[in-house]
Amino acid sequence: MINIGIIGVTGYTGEELIDVLLRHPQVRIAVVCSRSGQSVKISDIFPKFKGRIDSVCAEIDLKKITEESDLVFLALPHTVSMEIAPALLKAGKKVIDLSADYRLKNISVYKKFYNTKHKDKINLGLAIYGLPEIYRLKIKNARLIANPGCYPTVCILALAPLLALDLIEINSIIIDAKSGTTGAGKKLAEGLLFDEVNEDFKAYKVNTHQHAPEIEQELSKLAGKKVNITFVPHLLPISRGILATIYVKKARHQAPDTKHLISLYKKFYKKEPFVRIKDSGGFPRLKDVVKTNFCDIGIYDNKDSIIIIAAIDNLLKGASGQAVQNMNIMYKFPEHTALL
Amino acid sequence: MINIGIIGVTGYTGEELIDVLLRHPQVRIAVVCSRSGQSVKISDIFPKFKGRIDSVCAEIDLKKITEESDLVFLALPHTVSMEIAPALLKAGKKVIDLSADYRLKNISVYKKFYNTKHKDKINLGLAIYGLPEIYRLKIKNARLIANPGCYPTVCILALAPLLALDLIEINSIIIDAKSGTTGAGKKLAEGLLFDEVNEDFKAYKVNTHQHAPEIEQELSKLAGKKVNITFVPHLLPISRGILATIYVKKARHQAPDTKHLISLYKKFYKKEPFVRIKDSGGFPRLKDVVKTNFCDIGIYDNKDSIIIIAAIDNLLKGASGQAVQNMNIMYKFPEHTALL
Amino acid sequence: MINIGIIGVTGYTGEELIDVLLRHPQVRIAVVCSRSGQSVKISDIFPKFKGRIDSVCAEIDLKKITEESDLVFLALPHTVSMEIAPALLKAGKKVIDLSADYRLKNISVYKKFYNTKHKDKINLGLAIYGLPEIYRLKIKNARLIANPGCYPTVCILALAPLLALDLIEINSIIIDAKSGTTGAGKKLAEGLLFDEVNEDFKAYKVNTHQHAPEIEQELSKLAGKKVNITFVPHLLPISRGILATIYVKKARHQAPDTKHLISLYKKFYKKEPFVRIKDSGGFPRLKDVVKTNFCDIGIYDNKDSIIIIAAIDNLLKGASGQAVQNMNIMYKFPEHTALL
Amino acid sequence: MINIGIIGVTGYTGEELIDVLLRHPQVRIAVVCSRSGQSVKISDIFPKFKGRIDSVCAEIDLKKITEESDLVFLALPHTVSMEIAPALLKAGKKVIDLSADYRLKNISVYKKFYNTKHKDKINLGLAIYGLPEIYRLKIKNARLIANPGCYPTVCILALAPLLALDLIEINSIIIDAKSGTTGAGKKLAEGLLFDEVNEDFKAYKVNTHQHAPEIEQELSKLAGKKVNITFVPHLLPISRGILATIYVKKARHQAPDTKHLISLYKKFYKKEPFVRIKDSGGFPRLKDVVKTNFCDIGIYDNKDSIIIIAAIDNLLKGASGQAVQNMNIMYKFPEHTALL
Repeated sequence: MINIGIIGVTGYTGEELIDVLLRHPQVRIAVVCSRSGQSVKISDIFPKFKGRIDSVCAEIDLKKITEESDLVFLALPHTVSMEIAPALLKAGKKVIDLSADYRLKNISVYKKFYNTKHKDKINLGLAIYGLPEIYRLKIKNARLIANPGCYPTVCILALAPLLALDLIEINSIIIDAKSGTTGAGKKLAEGLLFDEVNEDFKAYKVNTHQHAPEIEQELSKLAGKKVNITFVPHLLPISRGILATIYVKKARHQAPDTKHLISLYKKFYKKEPFVRIKDSGGFPRLKDVVKTNFCDIGIYDNKDSIIIIAAIDNLLKGASGQAVQNMNIMYKFPEHTALL
Repeated sequence: MINIGIIGVTGYTGEELIDVLLRHPQVRIAVVCSRSGQSVKISDIFPKFKGRIDSVCAEIDLKKITEESDLVFLALPHTVSMEIAPALLKAGKKVIDLSADYRLKNISVYKKFYNTKHKDKINLGLAIYGLPEIYRLKIKNARLIANPGCYPTVCILALAPLLALDLIEINSIIIDAKSGTTGAGKKLAEGLLFDEVNEDFKAYKVNTHQHAPEIEQELSKLAGKKVNITFVPHLLPISRGILATIYVKKARHQAPDTKHLISLYKKFYKKEPFVRIKDSGGFPRLKDVVKTNFCDIGIYDNKDSIIIIAAIDNLLKGASGQAVQNMNIMYKFPEHTALL
Repeated sequence: MINIGIIGVTGYTGEELIDVLLRHPQVRIAVVCSRSGQSVKISDIFPKFKGRIDSVCAEIDLKKITEESDLVFLALPHTVSMEIAPALLKAGKKVIDLSADYRLKNISVYKKFYNTKHKDKINLGLAIYGLPEIYRLKIKNARLIANPGCYPTVCILALAPLLALDLIEINSIIIDAKSGTTGAGKKLAEGLLFDEVNEDFKAYKVNTHQHAPEIEQELSKLAGKKVNITFVPHLLPISRGILATIYVKKARHQAPDTKHLISLYKKFYKKEPFVRIKDSGGFPRLKDVVKTNFCDIGIYDNKDSIIIIAAIDNLLKGASGQAVQNMNIMYKFPEHTALL
Repeated sequence: MINIGIIGVTGYTGEELIDVLLRHPQVRIAVVCSRSGQSVKISDIFPKFKGRIDSVCAEIDLKKITEESDLVFLALPHTVSMEIAPALLKAGKKVIDLSADYRLKNISVYKKFYNTKHKDKINLGLAIYGLPEIYRLKIKNARLIANPGCYPTVCILALAPLLALDLIEINSIIIDAKSGTTGAGKKLAEGLLFDEVNEDFKAYKVNTHQHAPEIEQELSKLAGKKVNITFVPHLLPISRGILATIYVKKARHQAPDTKHLISLYKKFYKKEPFVRIKDSGGFPRLKDVVKTNFCDIGIYDNKDSIIIIAAIDNLLKGASGQAVQNMNIMYKFPEHTALL
């Protein structure tokens, strides 16, 4: 039984973490806190947890957290995590950070997209990007996990086999992504009011979204050279789920057809518990992945190009579910524990 | 051609007013302003109006408004209208106020429910409650219209025939009302975020809603004695529409059956262009009234009680549509102009 | 480890049963079948189950089912269950029927509301109404469970303390209920098309719904005399959840106030793992119960009447969750297993 | 005052046609009929029209229709229109066909995508493709209008300036389109049930949609050579609206930037009453076009490619609104009559 600390529970990812961890038989939520500084019962913040957890959410007390936890999840906004992680790491705690603070290895890119200087270059160097399908071995021994962003998770999983097998023109990638509103986090913005989102649909941050460089960093590693993408996110009038439709040029004309592509993907992800490749004729849809930790992927031959469609739940495989998957790997629990 | 001023256009009722008035062949939107104080084109605030209106929304300049308008609509929050209406009335302008400021005749009730002292008792006395089906004759010559609230509009229309004909026990009225989110106005409240409302449903302000005394005031006038109601509003995960299900005890046991009740209602509302009584077997639904100025009413015999179901669009018959209906009456335009 | 059979898996309750049972550590889904008669993998019918269950859904083969199962869930339409249950019971199997076939003890009422004669009076007599909060002791030794309807579950739990304690006028009960669309079952009806339900809200089957006599039967048992209710169901534009707002007259004028009512309810449901009573000022909402097996109840004093608001997930506490709760009781598993 | 016949009113486009035509001061709905063959009041089929239209929808009687109408709208399913149009045209009536029957000039393509042989090649030759922004002059004198499909309308308007000005590689066009459910028509299909669509999102008919050849036909005419597109439609969990995000390669590297592209589009559509080009920084969204006849277009420079985003209401500019716009042109009514 390991003891868990969670810092930052009032947002969507914190709420989802609690929900998943309460189903986990080998962990105990030992301490929960948030920046607001008030002592409130978790079940008063989220009445849905009444009868499941009795803890009080207190203000952040690093001494208490380090004394009472083995592993700490940071479900904090970007730029706040890097102020808290160093002390936890120094105290020998394992840390899984759900913010973007330890994802981008290039601090000038970080500064450009998050509008602030990076404050913890030392730990940035040892942070492992927590995408189990790519970095499982490193995750096993990691002390600091940079849990991937929601868009990056689905896009990297959708493209990894093609890049690893060198099947496409690397600068031809067009990602048309669609996300539910929880992807934007819980915040009082006019654009997130019910009547602004309901029965609407729109693109936003065309080619300026902060997840684009994160996707490019990881795709570049897979390709072994710099990858530039076109990334257009859209806001869906639903609560949860991301579906990305991706268009790429084949690298050569004698490229694999749909059937062969499907078989390559199935082989690539053969041992993965949370990646499912659609058979011919099947299409991923949000309904199949929402409230699960699965990533569903469909691949379609399109003459000299390939279309890939992939879907996840942004709060589970795209955030808190993946964080728990990383924890399971770090502690050698069965990887699907609390996630099926 | 009459000249219209609108004060307060950034909220839902202001936006809807513009939409309706742009279809009206006998009026011209002469001046539009809001409290924010910036000069912005209406079509920049609401891109949907581009190509339909070219006006600039300026800060509130009462001199300019009185010079350029014949009639002024106040689409302002409660407590703000009563600071602006007096000057307009003094300058001889007609005023239709969509806020609650001139609806409640009893200023201590106003204070209790709106948390502020009433500041314009003089004009409160001459304000006409703008429900055409009840007060059409007075509206014709009114200088100041207190445009009814959304819940009161649907509830009063649903109950007026029963009270006017003395068919029910007046203190048995239970109103179970359900409204879309625009009824709450456009404001940054956590409870109005998309993910808070989507796929949810809940009651709120049980027996403490500020529309309850407004309903009671008008039902009491119709009944000729004090009426007390039970009023439970609920929030629907949709943008527009109110449906109220109302339960009342019959006054005597030899009371009319469904067929007779329907015929009484049809007679009561015979000449009304915007009230539709469902035939036997029919049920009002939001789909039939949303984006219209109609109020649909169904009446059902239930042994010694009666069930009434009524539905409107809260932004049209419950606000801006009714305001234009009042204007049409005041200016002797065909009552349905711009509203069908 | 007990072996489970499920008959009828293509509807919403069958799908939900699989989802819950797959999380249950002490059971094994041994055989799954449906009336359609084709052999199809469960994960082809419901792609969301891929990677979680590999079974094939076959045609109904009672011999195979009785050989391979200890307990059989019937997730069949009304009138079909009673054709299948007798053989299973005869073979010594335990049966939990999610249809209405064994709920109504009065077969002429059954005939009136389900338009067919009852075909299994013998087993009707020994069927236990599977509402654990009322019948837990009988459920323990039951061979046939009539799993309650969704509306009845929430309404009976909301009213049981008041009736058991004789606090209200038993013929004053008005139930204004609102349900998501899955409550109607999965069927090709024009009224269930997306565009018919989306952004709409309406009442249906006013005082003619087949769940009304089921509610009256159980409330009558609790009260010790015949209870007649007014029951008006409405269709919410959401997938899951029922919220009922209930209005009752107090039995005497010196009746308990809100605080006292809350304390009575908390006492009544003290040991219940799935009933949560809201503290003063709190309101049940669907968001807190959807995807859970909880029933949330709020009680509000309203002069000489009482308002009760209660909410459940219609597919969990209102169907498949409750069915598993009954199974847990029958097999002495911890009652919350697979349900938290 | 011209007399209008409408054949096929029970679907979404027929319903929308009635709604628009009732606001048109220069037309009279003279005869309305449907294939169902029953005589039912329009206001019984669509209770929302009660108080606005009193007509009876009768079975199709071509003699009556030709006697009583000047212009006939066919809101019929594909393959049915071409059985009815010839008689109307022979009787000298003008016909606006909202089905696909007269859109594709190549009958073998028609056969491939609509699974039936074309039955009216003679009139196919004289049918004018009713996209006013491209074919206004021909529409003026047309006797038979093939009203464009919803996806084609938005895609052709989005791409016409680039093709007409020869700015892009014509075989690089990728259209990622998203539509609300009414685009699929009103039919009892499991995939259109509320619970199947709600909170879901998915692609469908990837590169096999029947609108792809229609788009290719029209783009080819604009380009002066054969254009092949990649077309991936998706289903949005909303009732109305299409938004297409389009990716194209620039024809040469010294291609125009965003500012210049916007100015080219504004010039191209300068006189169009229903095309609005977003200024720099603006994005089309469904909220701005739903319930209007507008098409909003945004253009974004993306290094050696261009992104175009365009949005319409599929039932108005994508069907019935455009049909009325065509009628206005044919009868020299102001083009925006009944459409603003």
